[in-house]
Amino acid sequence: MTAKTFTVVGGGPVGTLLAISLARHGYKVGLYEGRPDSRKTNIYQGKSINIALSDRGWSSLEKLGISADTKKQSIPMYHRAIHSIDGELNSQPYGKEGEAIWSVSRGGINEQLLDIADDEPNITTHFEHRLVNLDFESATATFSAKNGQRLDVQADYLFGADGARSKVRRLAHDLPRFSYSQSYMPQCYIELNIPANSDGSHKLEKNALHIWPRKDFMLIALPNLDGTFTCTLFLNYSGDVSFESLQERTAVEAFFESNFVDAMEYLEDPVDTFIEKNAAPLFLVHVFPWSFNHKVGLIGDAAHAIVPFYGQGMNCGFEDCAELDALISKYDHDWDQIFSAYERARKPNGDAIAELSKRNFIEMSDLSGDKNFQLQKKIEAKFSSQFPKLWTPLYSMVTFSPDIPYSEALRVGDEQNKVMEKIMALPNIEDDWDKEYVMSQLLELASEKFGDRQ
Amino acid sequence: MTAKTFTVVGGGPVGTLLAISLARHGYKVGLYEGRPDSRKTNIYQGKSINIALSDRGWSSLEKLGISADTKKQSIPMYHRAIHSIDGELNSQPYGKEGEAIWSVSRGGINEQLLDIADDEPNITTHFEHRLVNLDFESATATFSAKNGQRLDVQADYLFGADGARSKVRRLAHDLPRFSYSQSYMPQCYIELNIPANSDGSHKLEKNALHIWPRKDFMLIALPNLDGTFTCTLFLNYSGDVSFESLQERTAVEAFFESNFVDAMEYLEDPVDTFIEKNAAPLFLVHVFPWSFNHKVGLIGDAAHAIVPFYGQGMNCGFEDCAELDALISKYDHDWDQIFSAYERARKPNGDAIAELSKRNFIEMSDLSGDKNFQLQKKIEAKFSSQFPKLWTPLYSMVTFSPDIPYSEALRVGDEQNKVMEKIMALPNIEDDWDKEYVMSQLLELASEKFGDRQ
Repeated sequence: MTAKTFTVVGGGPVGTLLAISLARHGYKVGLYEGRPDSRKTNIYQGKSINIALSDRGWSSLEKLGISADTKKQSIPMYHRAIHSIDGELNSQPYGKEGEAIWSVSRGGINEQLLDIADDEPNITTHFEHRLVNLDFESATATFSAKNGQRLDVQADYLFGADGARSKVRRLAHDLPRFSYSQSYMPQCYIELNIPANSDGSHKLEKNALHIWPRKDFMLIALPNLDGTFTCTLFLNYSGDVSFESLQERTAVEAFFESNFVDAMEYLEDPVDTFIEKNAAPLFLVHVFPWSFNHKVGLIGDAAHAIVPFYGQGMNCGFEDCAELDALISKYDHDWDQIFSAYERARKPNGDAIAELSKRNFIEMSDLSGDKNFQLQKKIEAKFSSQFPKLWTPLYSMVTFSPDIPYSEALRVGDEQNKVMEKIMALPNIEDDWDKEYVMSQLLELASEKFGDRQ
Repeated sequence: MTAKTFTVVGGGPVGTLLAISLARHGYKVGLYEGRPDSRKTNIYQGKSINIALSDRGWSSLEKLGISADTKKQSIPMYHRAIHSIDGELNSQPYGKEGEAIWSVSRGGINEQLLDIADDEPNITTHFEHRLVNLDFESATATFSAKNGQRLDVQADYLFGADGARSKVRRLAHDLPRFSYSQSYMPQCYIELNIPANSDGSHKLEKNALHIWPRKDFMLIALPNLDGTFTCTLFLNYSGDVSFESLQERTAVEAFFESNFVDAMEYLEDPVDTFIEKNAAPLFLVHVFPWSFNHKVGLIGDAAHAIVPFYGQGMNCGFEDCAELDALISKYDHDWDQIFSAYERARKPNGDAIAELSKRNFIEMSDLSGDKNFQLQKKIEAKFSSQFPKLWTPLYSMVTFSPDIPYSEALRVGDEQNKVMEKIMALPNIEDDWDKEYVMSQLLELASEKFGDRQ
């Protein structure tokens, strides 16, 4: 039997990982990427974009047999470092002792995966090939190459792994019974930079994700290996304090000085950058189905673009790949079944992490600076350490529990919140939170709801 | 001052009404329609599509100075005629004595409006001009004419009134910060026909909307002036009993015989029609904003495609026109303000009628045959007649109360439902519903919630 062929549109981390998985199952894979090869051409304009990777991402890579080299080039962040408006610093651990989320260079992990793909004889990679059309019946893709030449590529199957603005997905808009939504968040963002000290060390604590929560907006900073931090300012697009309202230099200066006083000594030209840069939008995409004619599928951000507030975008995309990989084995290459089972399994999880990510803006920008919220977290952490089978905090379910699907984490988290509302409503909870009666009351309520888990 | 110019894309009822309104405000309007002029070419393939028009539609037409000629060519439907599966017939009035929804020929009202537009010297109408591109900065539209010729049309402003599959809206997909969703209902539909008696009279009661509610699917029939009924069968696209599962002639015959026994003697070739026709999908569209660069706007189904189950699609589109008309006067032709005020005013109402329409499938297909639901309706009607300021049933708010915005109807309706849940939970409500204590309890609950309305 001749090997079946696959076209993968998009050579980002998810598309490349998918190509590797398919190749190792024996498919001949053509991997097509619109941009140049970043290993040969600097496409990042010197800017290091970093993203958070956590247990779901690592565990998916492991399942696909990708060695943990990438982890060595990442920086563990064990806690949130909360910078309050008066300059006070507060530390909130992400999980238990030793649990961390990891700051990863997007370009770096992409290049490592591309190197692995290069070693797979079943993969041929084509850069600077931009998808312009797609026949969903025959999985024939038309690409425009660098020289303007058009190229028709026929394959047995095709996956769109071409990101949040997926062309494959947009071409599917007119297919019968394709439901889609794209909704913008009120916030936009720009990236800022904190340079390294002259000796290459970090100017802020290295093993933390730094947050300056200011309710309607926030600044965050993630460490890079070279001693720099990549910072992101999230701010409303329009309204009272917004990218639209802050136009004058004096107003922008005042905005930074009054809100980020302790960051100002580190940030590199924040005012100039703010004025020069176009703020980028944040949006969520929901679509269904994720596959068409048992021929074409969507994966990663192309299927479920989310907002970055839970640091789960790439984790979710890698999980898509691991799930699909398992289904190829389970259904022995029967793609009618694989496509159906894949979208059935992953759609609820894509929806759940989209919802959780949207909500987490409030947790990061507002609640992370809120005393009550911090107290609730502390009570949950204590209870969870005593009764780990009965209670895993939501953040830990999402971030450190790859065996709990996102959809389950969302559902259980909502149940837990109802329980915690009752606990937080106890009189004198601020003073008594560490007392025995609080734990026994929580035990009673939790056993009632989650007792069957023990 | 030279008159400002407008391009209106779409010469259906909403686009034509909008053109008339704009022309009467002094604008030079180019009205562009992709299809041929139905007054010269039969584009309806002999089929009369009828739709429901009610007080919002009539009142909007009046506000725009359109004479009530159209009403004379419509058929009032005073009640639902519910055909149960055993052939029993049951009548449910839509409102108070004399209140009706009206069965209107879509083609007929369109042609009447086109005739009125022809009398407006400010309007030039262009049929068989299909929109192919649009520059949202300059409101320059590119049309493809019948002969294949391309035509660039520049105007000061442009409105997309081009229906549920609006090309203007689809071209807006890539604009920054444009949020959109298109979601398919599980049901699809086909149209069937009940011919007239040989003397031109109707085979079923003329002044009623006929429903054969069968829970997961239903058949409805609306009367036409020529003695025929246009029927619509709504049925799931896939699943146990669905367009997909009913493929064999014998299965289709059994489906009709067992579910619509009393309709079978009237329906014209239902089985053949079912087998031959492609079922049409039902979908909802939500978008925001409804205007771009203070230059281009969306109106009618182009802004808010809904499902037909509340008979409000054209009513809502006509309301859009009436609201816009009032805003042109209010803001004295300042389109920066008009566009903003228009979308602010109409978006919540578009969302509300979309939600209400979706819910009404259940009311029509399931609840309309449900004894409890009918009892609740009866209690509400009685209470409303005694305390009209305290209580207008939801259906009447939507259908007979043009002064209550859709969004208000939805909100109040939900509050009323909570009250009615308590009433319907009274022991012996089936026997006691007409007794005094039920009314006084309802009065107490309603006064608590809506007392400030009295």
